[in-house]
Amino acid sequence: MDQEFLYNRVAAIISSQINSGLFNEGDRLPSVRALCLEHKISMNTAKRVYLELESQSLIRSKPQSGYFVTTPFPRQLPLPGVSHPSLEVSNEKPNELVTEVYSNIGNTSLTLFSIGIPSGNLLPLAKLRKELAVATRALPGAGTEYEPLAGNRKLRKAIAIRSAAWGGSLKDTDLVTTSGAMNALFFCLMAVGKAGDTLAVESPCYPGIFQLANSLGLKVLELPTHPTTGIVLEALERALPMIDICLLVPNFNTPLGSCMPDENKQLVVSMLADHNIPLIEDDIYGDLHYSNQRPKCCKSFDLTGNVLWCSSVSKTLAPGYRVGWIAPGKYKERVLELKLAHSISSASSTHEAVGNFMKTGQYDRHLRQFRLTLQSNYHNYVRTIANCFPKGTKTSRPQGGIALWVELPKEIDTARLYNLALKQGISIAPGRMFTLQDQFQHCMRLCISLPWDDSIRMKLQQVGAIANAMMYK
Amino acid sequence: MDQEFLYNRVAAIISSQINSGLFNEGDRLPSVRALCLEHKISMNTAKRVYLELESQSLIRSKPQSGYFVTTPFPRQLPLPGVSHPSLEVSNEKPNELVTEVYSNIGNTSLTLFSIGIPSGNLLPLAKLRKELAVATRALPGAGTEYEPLAGNRKLRKAIAIRSAAWGGSLKDTDLVTTSGAMNALFFCLMAVGKAGDTLAVESPCYPGIFQLANSLGLKVLELPTHPTTGIVLEALERALPMIDICLLVPNFNTPLGSCMPDENKQLVVSMLADHNIPLIEDDIYGDLHYSNQRPKCCKSFDLTGNVLWCSSVSKTLAPGYRVGWIAPGKYKERVLELKLAHSISSASSTHEAVGNFMKTGQYDRHLRQFRLTLQSNYHNYVRTIANCFPKGTKTSRPQGGIALWVELPKEIDTARLYNLALKQGISIAPGRMFTLQDQFQHCMRLCISLPWDDSIRMKLQQVGAIANAMMYK
Repeated sequence: MDQEFLYNRVAAIISSQINSGLFNEGDRLPSVRALCLEHKISMNTAKRVYLELESQSLIRSKPQSGYFVTTPFPRQLPLPGVSHPSLEVSNEKPNELVTEVYSNIGNTSLTLFSIGIPSGNLLPLAKLRKELAVATRALPGAGTEYEPLAGNRKLRKAIAIRSAAWGGSLKDTDLVTTSGAMNALFFCLMAVGKAGDTLAVESPCYPGIFQLANSLGLKVLELPTHPTTGIVLEALERALPMIDICLLVPNFNTPLGSCMPDENKQLVVSMLADHNIPLIEDDIYGDLHYSNQRPKCCKSFDLTGNVLWCSSVSKTLAPGYRVGWIAPGKYKERVLELKLAHSISSASSTHEAVGNFMKTGQYDRHLRQFRLTLQSNYHNYVRTIANCFPKGTKTSRPQGGIALWVELPKEIDTARLYNLALKQGISIAPGRMFTLQDQFQHCMRLCISLPWDDSIRMKLQQVGAIANAMMYK
Repeated sequence: MDQEFLYNRVAAIISSQINSGLFNEGDRLPSVRALCLEHKISMNTAKRVYLELESQSLIRSKPQSGYFVTTPFPRQLPLPGVSHPSLEVSNEKPNELVTEVYSNIGNTSLTLFSIGIPSGNLLPLAKLRKELAVATRALPGAGTEYEPLAGNRKLRKAIAIRSAAWGGSLKDTDLVTTSGAMNALFFCLMAVGKAGDTLAVESPCYPGIFQLANSLGLKVLELPTHPTTGIVLEALERALPMIDICLLVPNFNTPLGSCMPDENKQLVVSMLADHNIPLIEDDIYGDLHYSNQRPKCCKSFDLTGNVLWCSSVSKTLAPGYRVGWIAPGKYKERVLELKLAHSISSASSTHEAVGNFMKTGQYDRHLRQFRLTLQSNYHNYVRTIANCFPKGTKTSRPQGGIALWVELPKEIDTARLYNLALKQGISIAPGRMFTLQDQFQHCMRLCISLPWDDSIRMKLQQVGAIANAMMYK
């Protein structure tokens, strides 16, 4: 297992060095021996690293000479522009495509580029299984008992300790656990809002938020969002008089993958506090940074308790465990009241298992590997898209997270592309899912958390081929 | 384990024969040898049965003569009357006592007569632990993956098969799983109602329903309820023009333990269907019948899909597993939409484990023993109350479930009793928790799902002593 880890990690590092332009086409790579020394790995592991990179056509070996970079850095695809939703409040239901696309969950005969959850192949399943067994031995009543209302204390403590990494200084008593992040967002929206209120969100936006808002009778205002720096501050400022609640995914949101600069986060927090508009911060992707630096959270700039910080392990470790949480700031009592009324307790055993997984450092070890894999996947996706998708295709440039936003030429209706791809056993997420308005018809989201291999590459090429064919119809 | 089971079962049978008056004071019980033959048990087990009954002071041995009944059948305590809530719609918040009492969950230093969940000592913990390990091996992704939207298929199939026992004929496709029963009730209320609607409930009523209704902006109408036959049909009929939704717990509800006769169930179902008022049926106690006959559900009389039948294993097997379900009738699509928006999936592994536990017959085996224990507890509680509580005390006569409703003399304020008992390490549930109106001040609910022993008997006697002391102040 550790061997597997090393070999994957080193291959991902070199792949990302090539993709980032540190090595150029034709450059000679370090010798096998040099690689051993540099990364403290065995000769066998080093050879396996180069074999793997060769199989990805990133490098080739010349007998008696060494290993050389074959692939030039892909032509940088242009970024999509800032979104321009119309500044009108909507109480539309989410597009029917959402239900259609989500009905593919669990369909193992499909390649699911559409579903934003990590593939089981990238998760530490054996370790989790063991941790769950440990949890049922450690818990009173073998996990049949309810948790304390605020949730598993070990888990809350581990989350509090980890908050230092994003500039937070949470205590376990600041936290309330939930059954996943959607459950957390639901409690937050119920705690701060009421039917008829207007909720400001990024555009494009995760469709689950539209569904949740709709079910609670909230109106939605989509705001212009920059593909790398997130919500446009001026737009938010102008909209302040219209909105009652703001829900942002500041770090590597889906589908754009944008990450708000610290100064923007700080400005948004103070702007909203000044206007007494609660900020719900959904940070489910924050731990999936490709660089070494974990981005800060809006919550770290919160001086008034106005920010409700939510997260989960559904995008990083175990979607089916239903482990999420909230630091609800000044809304804690109300959130606890709602939790008592709606769920009383989460699943005790999975929450204990994740608490332990964090406490013992296993979570951070897993994240280190998982982030490298996602980064390497991102480069592989972009390279393939650059080679196979229609001319004029643009892609987002996420610095973390599991989503890639692809803007195709205007002629291509991605709702049609979805249907055509589905017939070939491939599911993509059409752009219209991510808005309540008439926009993003030629966009789509691709989830990059499937393990990259020849078969995935070929499926992605197939999507490109369908898109190309659609250009001439 | 099987030995344990046998000995408990036979002791419970004889205890209930004594309590039901089949044996009278001074009657001679069957010899140890006769007991062996009658129950197909070993001499050792038979002796243990009589030792246990002796330790409960139900019988005593006379050397060379055998075993004799010591305890006369307790004087039958009078039944509380039919409740008479004022017929006014309320949008009050639930009494603060609710939060206070529920904050005791998980406090192991207290004797929790107040919390209506089964004690871990009465649950098959080792078997559940094993089943959870099996589940994480059997599930794709070791339980880290989301379930299909409708929920674990094995679980839905097992619930469908078991529906024959209550007159149902469900298919797995009629069911949607949820994270416990409160989550099920939430989806039902959201599916059929909207803020401002009026919800009719029994009185007294489980406080969680008030909390849920309040959080959704529903108004509540409490209706007169008979302690053994449940909601008063004439009262419901008169209220029909005022109500939009009806939520009943027809089988062994908490706190009264009433069970609607079949003809009442049938009438309610047709009455509500005629007026197009959805009926949410909460059947979480239906499997806990003391007699051999599982009561029918309203759902079994549902011809129009107007009944949303909900249940869970939180009162029978594993509260902390968060396993519940709905057969939403004609509201199925709406419920699925809500589940997608609010939770996507339940905890995969605990749902798989419970599905297997049902499928393999372990659930029914556990229920058989658990029901006997509850019945025997019921008799033990009533006997102790008859002996130690103030004159004039009345108790409900549940034929199933885990709650006993106790009506004390009018002088006794159970909110005060709660505080006094808490100082002695005992938590009871004051009557005011179970209404939004000014009633039940002298009532309380006792949960009978703690394992009966001398310590529990003494704690119950202590409650009686506090009540007696309050009479003279």
